[in-house]
Amino acid sequence: MPAIDNPYYSSAFHGDYELVSVGRLELEEGGVIPDCHLAITTWGQLNEAKDNAILIPTWFSGSHQIFRDVYVGPGHALDPDIYFIVAVNQIGGGLSTSPHNADGANAEIAMSRFPHVRIGDDVVAQERLLREHLGIDRLALVVGGSMGAQQTYEWAVRFPDKVERAASIAGTAQNTPHDFLFAKALIEAITSDPGFAGGEYSSNADVVAGLTRHAGIWAVMGFSTEFWKQEVWRALGFETKEAFLAGFLEPYFTVMDPNDLLCQAWKWQRGDVARHTGGDLATALGRITATTYVLPISEDMFFSVRDHEAEQALIPGSTLHVVDDVLGHLGLFGVAPTFLPQIDQHLGELLGTKV
Amino acid sequence: MPAIDNPYYSSAFHGDYELVSVGRLELEEGGVIPDCHLAITTWGQLNEAKDNAILIPTWFSGSHQIFRDVYVGPGHALDPDIYFIVAVNQIGGGLSTSPHNADGANAEIAMSRFPHVRIGDDVVAQERLLREHLGIDRLALVVGGSMGAQQTYEWAVRFPDKVERAASIAGTAQNTPHDFLFAKALIEAITSDPGFAGGEYSSNADVVAGLTRHAGIWAVMGFSTEFWKQEVWRALGFETKEAFLAGFLEPYFTVMDPNDLLCQAWKWQRGDVARHTGGDLATALGRITATTYVLPISEDMFFSVRDHEAEQALIPGSTLHVVDDVLGHLGLFGVAPTFLPQIDQHLGELLGTKV
Repeated sequence: MPAIDNPYYSSAFHGDYELVSVGRLELEEGGVIPDCHLAITTWGQLNEAKDNAILIPTWFSGSHQIFRDVYVGPGHALDPDIYFIVAVNQIGGGLSTSPHNADGANAEIAMSRFPHVRIGDDVVAQERLLREHLGIDRLALVVGGSMGAQQTYEWAVRFPDKVERAASIAGTAQNTPHDFLFAKALIEAITSDPGFAGGEYSSNADVVAGLTRHAGIWAVMGFSTEFWKQEVWRALGFETKEAFLAGFLEPYFTVMDPNDLLCQAWKWQRGDVARHTGGDLATALGRITATTYVLPISEDMFFSVRDHEAEQALIPGSTLHVVDDVLGHLGLFGVAPTFLPQIDQHLGELLGTKV
Repeated sequence: MPAIDNPYYSSAFHGDYELVSVGRLELEEGGVIPDCHLAITTWGQLNEAKDNAILIPTWFSGSHQIFRDVYVGPGHALDPDIYFIVAVNQIGGGLSTSPHNADGANAEIAMSRFPHVRIGDDVVAQERLLREHLGIDRLALVVGGSMGAQQTYEWAVRFPDKVERAASIAGTAQNTPHDFLFAKALIEAITSDPGFAGGEYSSNADVVAGLTRHAGIWAVMGFSTEFWKQEVWRALGFETKEAFLAGFLEPYFTVMDPNDLLCQAWKWQRGDVARHTGGDLATALGRITATTYVLPISEDMFFSVRDHEAEQALIPGSTLHVVDDVLGHLGLFGVAPTFLPQIDQHLGELLGTKV
């Protein structure tokens, strides 16, 4: 049984998903996951030519569920009537093998003993999953937001022959130092809680104060200054910004597992495709052969448009398309009615390109 | 003797200053400072016409010292050969009456018992100081940055007949909700430290972990994404961003008094000239008769250019001049060699306007 019995990480909250073992996973940082399980959801059917597969990796604190609720469906660019779409939850995200749920063969890496995982480890595990379990050797598209964009870039650089198209939304190929410091502040909000107990708490409820402060820092960086000024949270049914924090942003995070969030944050901090080229970002991005859409969100306070522009200039066959959204980074939730139509337009156009 | 003997708040660190009592100060929120002392520094001489006085209020965590080191001097717009310049440290800033130093008649409000202070209380105390102690009834200029800008606006709205010119650098007349949340995150970094002990610690060293996290959040919001990306900290003699944090930003804050910082942060959160007009910002700013220069910093992540623009449009006789600085808000320290020349140009031009 898992180290922590956290009901949030279940089908009740995330809808149906399947756990698939990809076996022993040797990690880039030297650790091992003895029996790595990936939580996946699929939509649609793989065609005979096996050329209609789309991969969606997940972002920090998110799961496949947001894609089911918002991004995937008939009428959207990510259309299950046309494509075989596979969403894979990231390691440490709480549904795939993670600190709080490591049991059985993974019991030795539960909780504070969970090894450091890199974006590259997720992508290696995903490639194995697709090849060995789903018979997919080539992807029509990899698309992800935030940490999902980090994984998208890792795919395009690491396996250029396997990625026909790539779309990175609100995330960069090489994490910025500012982002590193933002994630550091998030991490320290959690680890400084006495209830965290060095990662050996008995329930996420022990760390509710730290998780709440973590939510408070997201409030500052996750949305835009203008989101707060225009009181956009009113559209979500709240009367005050305090009610929005207490009724939405804080409960969103306080149900989550602290060690799981830390595993993801550590990974996010170090996303960097230039690991493959001795630190040379231009050479790494130059490897990309996928037709690539770079899709920053206009008001994003930490994955800034400027940082996307700098990388896009280094990616052959790429184009930049700024997604206009006053919500900032957390526009990824698709709350603004104008958000998904922009995503659909860009992804539809990208999927229509010949490769 | 003060509740806390903190050597940082002394002439050894801040240069010469004078403590002037303005007596009993009834506060806007209902509390009282029995014997309010303001720490002030002056440069130059008041002329016979008494029309060459300039007031500089201070910002969060700052003192008069930065103005002595960077902004004031022969050859600068703030020239002591021409002007009588008075820098007044804000209440709670550590040099004027503050939680950590409240003693004698103020002993009853020491530490956690310190009352809530508003920007308006500072301005009332400053007006009394200027009138009763320095014989100044009218100011040629009020100029301040950040919380100093908040005080500048309060002066211009509250005492329009006393302010001929106003210059607000990187600060707004009505604090934004985003800023409120940023300051909230800063506050919680401190108060969540078990060593804070509800404000009854025995030394700031008891709260070093919280003060360090507070510095870490400043690292994210105080500079710009581009400051970190361009590694501008190298110009300050550091080899890594970690060394810059450990050698500059963290020690900058960890020597300070937690209750003093909290007093200032609470005040900052609630800066709002529309208190005078039942919440109507346009009417409040419409009261301003000073010739006003609104001077946002281009890369400021929390006192954004956009927020300045919105207010400037409501101020009669005002103009907007964006100060270009990759450092962002903490460009106020004047580290970039291009910063002060821009300030000097704008203030020189403003001081040259006929009133």
